[in-house]
Amino acid sequence: MTGTAPAPFTADDYRTRMERAARTAADAGLAGLLVAPGPDLVWLTGYAPPAETERLTLLVLASGRDPALVVPALEAPDARASGAPGLTLHDWTDGQDPYAATAALLDPSGRFGVSDNAWAMHLLALQKALPGTSYASLTDALPMLRAVKDTAEVELLAAAGAAADATFEEIRKVPFGGRRERDVAADLAGLLRDFGHAQVDFTIVASGPNGANPHHEAGHRVIERGDMVVLDFGGLRDGYGSDTSRTVHVGEPTDEERRVHDLVREAQEAGFRAVRPGVACQEVDRAARAVIADAGYGEYFIHRTGHGIGVTTHEPPYMIEGEEQPLVPGMCFSVEPGVYLPGRFGVRIEDIVTVTGDGGRRLNDTTRELVIVD
Amino acid sequence: MTGTAPAPFTADDYRTRMERAARTAADAGLAGLLVAPGPDLVWLTGYAPPAETERLTLLVLASGRDPALVVPALEAPDARASGAPGLTLHDWTDGQDPYAATAALLDPSGRFGVSDNAWAMHLLALQKALPGTSYASLTDALPMLRAVKDTAEVELLAAAGAAADATFEEIRKVPFGGRRERDVAADLAGLLRDFGHAQVDFTIVASGPNGANPHHEAGHRVIERGDMVVLDFGGLRDGYGSDTSRTVHVGEPTDEERRVHDLVREAQEAGFRAVRPGVACQEVDRAARAVIADAGYGEYFIHRTGHGIGVTTHEPPYMIEGEEQPLVPGMCFSVEPGVYLPGRFGVRIEDIVTVTGDGGRRLNDTTRELVIVD
Repeated sequence: MTGTAPAPFTADDYRTRMERAARTAADAGLAGLLVAPGPDLVWLTGYAPPAETERLTLLVLASGRDPALVVPALEAPDARASGAPGLTLHDWTDGQDPYAATAALLDPSGRFGVSDNAWAMHLLALQKALPGTSYASLTDALPMLRAVKDTAEVELLAAAGAAADATFEEIRKVPFGGRRERDVAADLAGLLRDFGHAQVDFTIVASGPNGANPHHEAGHRVIERGDMVVLDFGGLRDGYGSDTSRTVHVGEPTDEERRVHDLVREAQEAGFRAVRPGVACQEVDRAARAVIADAGYGEYFIHRTGHGIGVTTHEPPYMIEGEEQPLVPGMCFSVEPGVYLPGRFGVRIEDIVTVTGDGGRRLNDTTRELVIVD
Repeated sequence: MTGTAPAPFTADDYRTRMERAARTAADAGLAGLLVAPGPDLVWLTGYAPPAETERLTLLVLASGRDPALVVPALEAPDARASGAPGLTLHDWTDGQDPYAATAALLDPSGRFGVSDNAWAMHLLALQKALPGTSYASLTDALPMLRAVKDTAEVELLAAAGAAADATFEEIRKVPFGGRRERDVAADLAGLLRDFGHAQVDFTIVASGPNGANPHHEAGHRVIERGDMVVLDFGGLRDGYGSDTSRTVHVGEPTDEERRVHDLVREAQEAGFRAVRPGVACQEVDRAARAVIADAGYGEYFIHRTGHGIGVTTHEPPYMIEGEEQPLVPGMCFSVEPGVYLPGRFGVRIEDIVTVTGDGGRRLNDTTRELVIVD
């Protein structure tokens, strides 16, 4: 299940990314990068192996050397046919030791950055094959490797955001009251696909008390008149992610429901207004959180304010207290404060935002007013 | 994307599996098991987190202690509602250090088994938090943890196999000649779903020269009259896997095509006949390989003879030279020899087989004769 549609990048784009990654690693004192199948590999090479298996596939990037791909012989033809040229393929067959083959490519006393999602079994085998090496996860070592998007990437994210917005404009017209959460979730998934998504990552429909669980997906609960309903949905379109949340109300809300929704909307606006180059990520979190805390709801905002987005729907940079990374033009991330009242209801409002030369640009722009649905 | 439908097991089943796993780990000299989201966690607890993310979810099993699940607070409600009872939940919120929380549950000088597919970033963080610990992948430490299926599991695999067989019986009726590989692959996926699969893992349609690449998926190539076509498809039905291959021919085959197909059929039969309790896995490989080698085609059989199947479609035990693990009743795996003639065509025939008290039982049983399609 590759799940990731090929994005419209050229062989030169991939070569540039690989060269820059190798250079950045060297600058950070690393002997190289070990890149596993998944978003890092797709971004660097365009290659998405057919399925994640126990067989080792690993891209080795080191400054001043040609990129090398260790790959099962079975998958070598597909790897060769994929996006990135200039990759030296080191294929291995069942029964051979792929870790010995990889070790031969590595500085035996080097420190390497390794994809967050590389399998532990592969890392352990490399640690055993080369006891003098050490490792750091890519998010620890080079957290911003994929964080700053180029113009083409921002426009792909904008297109994915527009498709998610179109999905919201349609879903607000469907009946909510009397239907199960999972039925509305199925509508969301269908609409995301209709608007061009090749992969749907999540379709949260959290009604009434379920809305107080930020990660409630969608279940058998029948949505009732009088419910607040948190909608949070996204996936990949042309290889780049969407992720937006709106909270709707079935019929007329109470004063308290409207007040909490207004509060979250103000917090989301404050988070967005904090976005500009040079500001630390944590300032976006602080700006949104302050609005909610000042209104006395601080203890009910139980997650970070945002996360990066790109070839995945969750990645660095994180908008969270303690993250001092300054914002850089081209970074793209969510701004998604929420308030969760246990046993009662929840509200979350989320847009993807990209950092521009002098502020932020929303990649979602459906109304943030409370929408009343049937 | 959980992808895994809940299997019909009870809380007691999960408790028994967790207790046995902890005991097996202790017997192997391990201080415990660290189980990541994925097949190990599903098998042990029934819990499939909504999506694999950078947030740590980890089951800690140690003999004589209650099972503990470290889980993001956001996902704790779903974890609590899932299959396994008696799990102590240790939830953590964004900004807290989940590795410190996990470390507090571990023997600081212990050796632990860790899920093969645990993320490298989580393993590295644990290695840093507890420098006195050491780790082995579950496949290295306890390769047979999930390998021996109980009766209910074998019957779920048999049902998945029957659904795959029903898929083959339908696909042989559709037109092949003049259609693209990917269109036939889409038919296969639809049929697997029609016959109850919740997840389709692969739908290989490799026609003519593409058949010589064992992992070619399905592409734009238009299938022609005179092509051999390798079909290899499977996925998960009620949480358990199917995986079968048949090679069909569009119109009448040549003598050579028929001869190679007969050879692979004999090799598959020889591999199947080698299956009985106490025989080493490698003997299954040797039996199938000898038939092909004796006919002079040894260099064209370029992969192992088989792999285990259960809550995943690829897992231990492996039928490969060097694997001395004896077969045990309840083990389930593929027997799938093939011959791949570069630039020309390929043939593969694959059944899932389970070890019985005195031999093997096929969980696939469509004809292994060469089927002629239109």
